[in-house]
Amino acid sequence: MREQLLAAEKVKAIEWRDGKLHLLDQRLLPREETWLAYDSAAGVAEAIRQMVVRGAPAIGIAAAFGLVLGARARLAEGDADWQVELEGDFTVLADSRPTAVNLFWALERMRERLQRLKVGENPLLALEAEALGILESDREANLTMAQLGMELIRKHQGSPQNILTHCNTGALATGGFGTALGVIRAAYLDGLVERVYADETRPWLQGSRLTAWELEGEGVPVTLNADSAAAHLMKTRGITWVIVGADRITANGDVANKIGTYQLAVCAMHHGVRFMVVAPSSTIDMGLEDGEDIPIEERDGRELLDVGGQRIAANVDAYNPVFDVTPADLIDAIVTEKGIVERPDAAKMAQLMCRKRLH
Amino acid sequence: MREQLLAAEKVKAIEWRDGKLHLLDQRLLPREETWLAYDSAAGVAEAIRQMVVRGAPAIGIAAAFGLVLGARARLAEGDADWQVELEGDFTVLADSRPTAVNLFWALERMRERLQRLKVGENPLLALEAEALGILESDREANLTMAQLGMELIRKHQGSPQNILTHCNTGALATGGFGTALGVIRAAYLDGLVERVYADETRPWLQGSRLTAWELEGEGVPVTLNADSAAAHLMKTRGITWVIVGADRITANGDVANKIGTYQLAVCAMHHGVRFMVVAPSSTIDMGLEDGEDIPIEERDGRELLDVGGQRIAANVDAYNPVFDVTPADLIDAIVTEKGIVERPDAAKMAQLMCRKRLH
Repeated sequence: MREQLLAAEKVKAIEWRDGKLHLLDQRLLPREETWLAYDSAAGVAEAIRQMVVRGAPAIGIAAAFGLVLGARARLAEGDADWQVELEGDFTVLADSRPTAVNLFWALERMRERLQRLKVGENPLLALEAEALGILESDREANLTMAQLGMELIRKHQGSPQNILTHCNTGALATGGFGTALGVIRAAYLDGLVERVYADETRPWLQGSRLTAWELEGEGVPVTLNADSAAAHLMKTRGITWVIVGADRITANGDVANKIGTYQLAVCAMHHGVRFMVVAPSSTIDMGLEDGEDIPIEERDGRELLDVGGQRIAANVDAYNPVFDVTPADLIDAIVTEKGIVERPDAAKMAQLMCRKRLH
Repeated sequence: MREQLLAAEKVKAIEWRDGKLHLLDQRLLPREETWLAYDSAAGVAEAIRQMVVRGAPAIGIAAAFGLVLGARARLAEGDADWQVELEGDFTVLADSRPTAVNLFWALERMRERLQRLKVGENPLLALEAEALGILESDREANLTMAQLGMELIRKHQGSPQNILTHCNTGALATGGFGTALGVIRAAYLDGLVERVYADETRPWLQGSRLTAWELEGEGVPVTLNADSAAAHLMKTRGITWVIVGADRITANGDVANKIGTYQLAVCAMHHGVRFMVVAPSSTIDMGLEDGEDIPIEERDGRELLDVGGQRIAANVDAYNPVFDVTPADLIDAIVTEKGIVERPDAAKMAQLMCRKRLH
């Protein structure tokens, strides 16, 4: 299966080459495939804020390379205080988006690497290697999670399933081929998936623009639906699993994810549909007790009022929270590269975090 | 209150004058206010199909005038068999949209009027009077429902409430100022509403294009939100009521309404938020036992894939059911012009239908 999955890695959205961070501009997909190159920490922070790159694991990876670019500029100035000045880059990158904890996790990992620098070690090479390590381990985590999630589907249901997903959690959102979408891909390759239903995911349309594009490109049977059709699908189309990613998971197993995830979980519970969250352990924030403490990003109301630069709505106030919190008790399983937590709670989450990664 | 409500009747979308049916083109709102004039049954059927006019009560009214136009054309031909030929117009109008029963109810009322024609009576004047009667009685029903719904809100909660609504159920959807939106308007005038949250209502955006436009025009505090933010709003913004319209209500109290209504009802139940359906008794189809029997219209997937003529999604299959069914047991109250049914069931619905209209 590992080889099959690696062969299925077709789309890539993040590349580190020629000393620059190259990002596939996700604002323009699927209309255009345009790559943008970044050579500064501030530029990468702006790319994260503007959603050139999005998806919790992907913005963590991008931020790590942003830090490399920041360090290179500071070092080029030849100032002995470069590590102090680099704090400015840590801040600008950390301020880019508030909800996905992978961003802060990646920056923290870069900071720790800095603190471990040995005398005479080339700091730039060390930081670059660390960022590449974050990218590579995310890719590995995708592989492991895909396999674990697929086995969970097989355990509960043997015949091909109709699966509903929300937002984009594929190659465009990670360093590999995805979290939730990685599980769905693996399950499809294993013959466990009949059809994938993709919520269009307003307002940014990650589902209709990105997930539909990824799955269609690989020949996975995918049907797009309005977000508000989800419960109707559960009732009439034999959905057996809802599979989503996460932007932050707290110590008790509460999950912040794309707005709409919470009501999918409520509806899944109402219909006896299983609810799976797939996220690398870098998404787990053991420093927060529960989901109430997660900062929920509110973006510009224009994301609701305008589509493609065209005003579609009346001139009114628009409230645009882009994440919500799904309480642990609505979740059947959290799949990470360290293993699966079924019916999550604080004790099980703590136990998971003590484990080494599988495989 | 009646006078206050009549004074609040500002928007009109259907007018019968100079022997033509004039419709405010709802496909173009809020960008342009363009009126189209129709002088044939087939034209009116096409206007209904294309959603120039939409909203269950409004399409019933439009169909009634469509029949008047059809009869006029048949009579002008001077054929003694005109009533037989008129069957073609009944069929073309009935085939325009399948879910809202008000359409069939209005056509049935026109047919009954035809059957009651007396010798020497002018059939055209009789049919025109009947269509005007349907329009006027819908307007009256709006007034009565507004008052009843408002009293229900006042009975359960005294202080200003945050109310969530879906789709458009206002002046644009009826002959008066609305069903669910009529209740919300009346409650606002009575000081019972702090803020209205309007679901944008994908894919046709009735919420952001029509409801937001109507409420904003009247100074009612309105905030637009993505459909998928509804449960998050219930959890974090103190929503106490979800108030929606209906396209068809069956004998047991099941309600077909705009796609997304069902998941709002599931989420309202989960959060202890009250759920009110407001619809004239012409929406009640006692011929269907329960909601499973309601034909659910599926519209072109392009409504999901394109916005404003611009392709926004990847080239995939899109499933676009535009209604869903909310079972009676998720509904706190159905408000009609004949009275209120709390916690609807077959016995209570039968009892309601035996009543005369109130006021």
